[in-house]
Amino acid sequence: MSHPDPAPRDPAVLEALFRPKAVAMVGASTQPEKLGYQVFRNLAEAGFGGPLYPVNPKADAILGRKAFPAVADLPEAVDLAVIMVPARVVPETIRACGRKGARAAIVISGGFSETGPEGDRLQQEALAAAREAGIGLVGPNCQGVNHPYHGLCASWPLLTTRGCVGVISQSGTVGAALMDWASLEELGVSAFVSMGNRGDLDESDLLTYFAADPNTRAIAFYLESIKSVPRFLRAMASCPKPVVILKAGRTPKGRKAAESHTRSLAGRDEIYEGAFRQYRIHRAATLDELYDTAKALAYLRRPAGKRIAIITSSGGSGILATDAAEMAGLDVAPLPEALRASLKPVLPPHCTVANPLDLTGDATAAMYRQVAEAAAPHFDSLVIIFGDPIPGASEVVPAGSPHAVICLGGAEVEREERARMHRKGIPTFPTPERGVLALSHLTRF
Amino acid sequence: MSHPDPAPRDPAVLEALFRPKAVAMVGASTQPEKLGYQVFRNLAEAGFGGPLYPVNPKADAILGRKAFPAVADLPEAVDLAVIMVPARVVPETIRACGRKGARAAIVISGGFSETGPEGDRLQQEALAAAREAGIGLVGPNCQGVNHPYHGLCASWPLLTTRGCVGVISQSGTVGAALMDWASLEELGVSAFVSMGNRGDLDESDLLTYFAADPNTRAIAFYLESIKSVPRFLRAMASCPKPVVILKAGRTPKGRKAAESHTRSLAGRDEIYEGAFRQYRIHRAATLDELYDTAKALAYLRRPAGKRIAIITSSGGSGILATDAAEMAGLDVAPLPEALRASLKPVLPPHCTVANPLDLTGDATAAMYRQVAEAAAPHFDSLVIIFGDPIPGASEVVPAGSPHAVICLGGAEVEREERARMHRKGIPTFPTPERGVLALSHLTRF
Repeated sequence: MSHPDPAPRDPAVLEALFRPKAVAMVGASTQPEKLGYQVFRNLAEAGFGGPLYPVNPKADAILGRKAFPAVADLPEAVDLAVIMVPARVVPETIRACGRKGARAAIVISGGFSETGPEGDRLQQEALAAAREAGIGLVGPNCQGVNHPYHGLCASWPLLTTRGCVGVISQSGTVGAALMDWASLEELGVSAFVSMGNRGDLDESDLLTYFAADPNTRAIAFYLESIKSVPRFLRAMASCPKPVVILKAGRTPKGRKAAESHTRSLAGRDEIYEGAFRQYRIHRAATLDELYDTAKALAYLRRPAGKRIAIITSSGGSGILATDAAEMAGLDVAPLPEALRASLKPVLPPHCTVANPLDLTGDATAAMYRQVAEAAAPHFDSLVIIFGDPIPGASEVVPAGSPHAVICLGGAEVEREERARMHRKGIPTFPTPERGVLALSHLTRF
Repeated sequence: MSHPDPAPRDPAVLEALFRPKAVAMVGASTQPEKLGYQVFRNLAEAGFGGPLYPVNPKADAILGRKAFPAVADLPEAVDLAVIMVPARVVPETIRACGRKGARAAIVISGGFSETGPEGDRLQQEALAAAREAGIGLVGPNCQGVNHPYHGLCASWPLLTTRGCVGVISQSGTVGAALMDWASLEELGVSAFVSMGNRGDLDESDLLTYFAADPNTRAIAFYLESIKSVPRFLRAMASCPKPVVILKAGRTPKGRKAAESHTRSLAGRDEIYEGAFRQYRIHRAATLDELYDTAKALAYLRRPAGKRIAIITSSGGSGILATDAAEMAGLDVAPLPEALRASLKPVLPPHCTVANPLDLTGDATAAMYRQVAEAAAPHFDSLVIIFGDPIPGASEVVPAGSPHAVICLGGAEVEREERARMHRKGIPTFPTPERGVLALSHLTRF
């Protein structure tokens, strides 16, 4: 084989990273304005069930927990270390953590290869120390790891909502934005990993892990480059879950900026485009599309084909959805005669029985339900647009359907119904165009 | 001239519509679940300073206000009538309102030309009655009018935030969505008009009105067709304010749906495309782009050219912004040598001094301000991305600048700073792509 795999990851490393028994945070701070305090507070408040030890030579206690002057002083073994100390002491910190039993480390500190040759030397030293100790390392120069199913928030902001999308990002901000949106929508994530400089654990390792993680149904990546394309595609080939990638650096100047950011070759965009298509990787063009597509992939059943019916209370939204469907290659097919006949008695007399089907402002949740149930057998999926305050909208579609729900213009009633749907695992989308584009991804491969 | 104008609108009609002295709502309901109650409640609660009379033959009072059995029984003249009675009694209601001094009517009721020949006959009768009485009519079959600067919410939902964007929509839902988003963002609108069937007052009349309205800085349209293209372009030619249009029905099936919705010819998309370009009308491809572009047009100063600098705390967001700028025709130009030299001492040592300029996670509001002030003279505009929780971010850019501010990944701190900016009239955008696309509109004509 032309691209031999490196040794597969020791499962104990990933277990220590995502499901640690005991955690130390080296560099926990007593000063609330410092990130070293905020991350420790998030670790303390996210619901982690095991022991959590702050390490700080100048503090007696942090947030009511006894602090230890050095890793060597910890009263018991820890399998995960969260490290936020100056770059120059990171290698020795990793060695100390190894002696204390750690199998995984999250190095949030910056000052490594992103800063130039001296930082690069320090990064190599830290990686060698980790390798020697049998430690798997996330980072350095990253925004950490959040795993709400284990009560582990070694990151910021503090977000604890459990969901079905695994978020893996080469940018802390992009990952945090996705997590924040998912949290506001009460959808949550299954886990978030900010890879930072990707010194050790990379997108291929994490793809393999999330492919088997029982809480993850879809995987969303923000990437500027792929460390080893053959290895990633190998991992992809054996991943049974859908994957969507926002690959930044698509334009020449964007690519140059990406190469400067990660100090690695981003690669010509066409190469990625071809590989993504071949391996059935969904590609998002924007951050919104990444978020929406991940939601659709994680929460909707895959439709059998491209024939859709649009059911709406808003004629205008139905037209926007039709335009978006045509542009995304979905088929807004005519309503079969039998369906038209069966719908007539259900609908207000002034409805035009067509596709899009405009129930008009008189629409009620009961009417939507009757129409959706009648139409579903005739189409591969439905686009259901609640374009008014529709009390009971959350009862129209069951969880796990192939139907895209779009809500807009309904103000407070809409916000309540949307939150109810999200708590039941029914995703909603904020505009006709975004909902239809996300749905179209489900019919691509 | 090949397209003679119809008589220009009597200014008293538009004054009565947007700044009435006394308002009657015919069809106000006592039942909270009815729209006829909700609209009356919104009228009562939006802060209107003049007398407001509910007309309902079966009620003594509604929301503590004495109700009158018929329009003829009103104790004084009213200049605006809000009408929500069954279609068949709308013509006689309009006649009665005319006798009571009305110069404008908002007919929310449906059941007119959108329903077929009988409804069309009723609509013609209603229009004839309005013409005879000298009444200007919005609707029928519409979501009403909201004019927060006059405390007038003859629409739903109840939204009272005052802003600088005039929203004119052929879809009630699309307009309500724009208003709702603007309200959530504390930006508000200058006015919202839902045109419904556009029996009388149309986009050309309203464009002329908003062109002169002192509170409106930019005008956002959702349109499925233009009633009279020559008249609209004439109005456009004498409008000193920027206009953005989301024209639905761009694809053949979308166009067919639009023609069915409005029962009028939507017209080939290429015709619109050419006319829009010639008359410097901004065209939005999606609802998000309509909203974002209207914000940019209303609140940002127009940059002198296309040269931008991207300043960010998030390398990834900077790359996404670079990609988006390249695709939108903006020029992410190299930093001039003099600027590079002057920035070096301000920046953390590990910053790469380039465009995009990544201040890294160490960025503070003070650092942003210093860098923005140094960079602004060298570029036509700045794209400033707050990709972390940055306390004080709202102090970095003044209102009325040509700079686009993008906020993401900053959770609670971000929400506070964003709200502060919006209250000061500084617009923010939620993703790099959306902010850059909106900014690019400002450099198009």
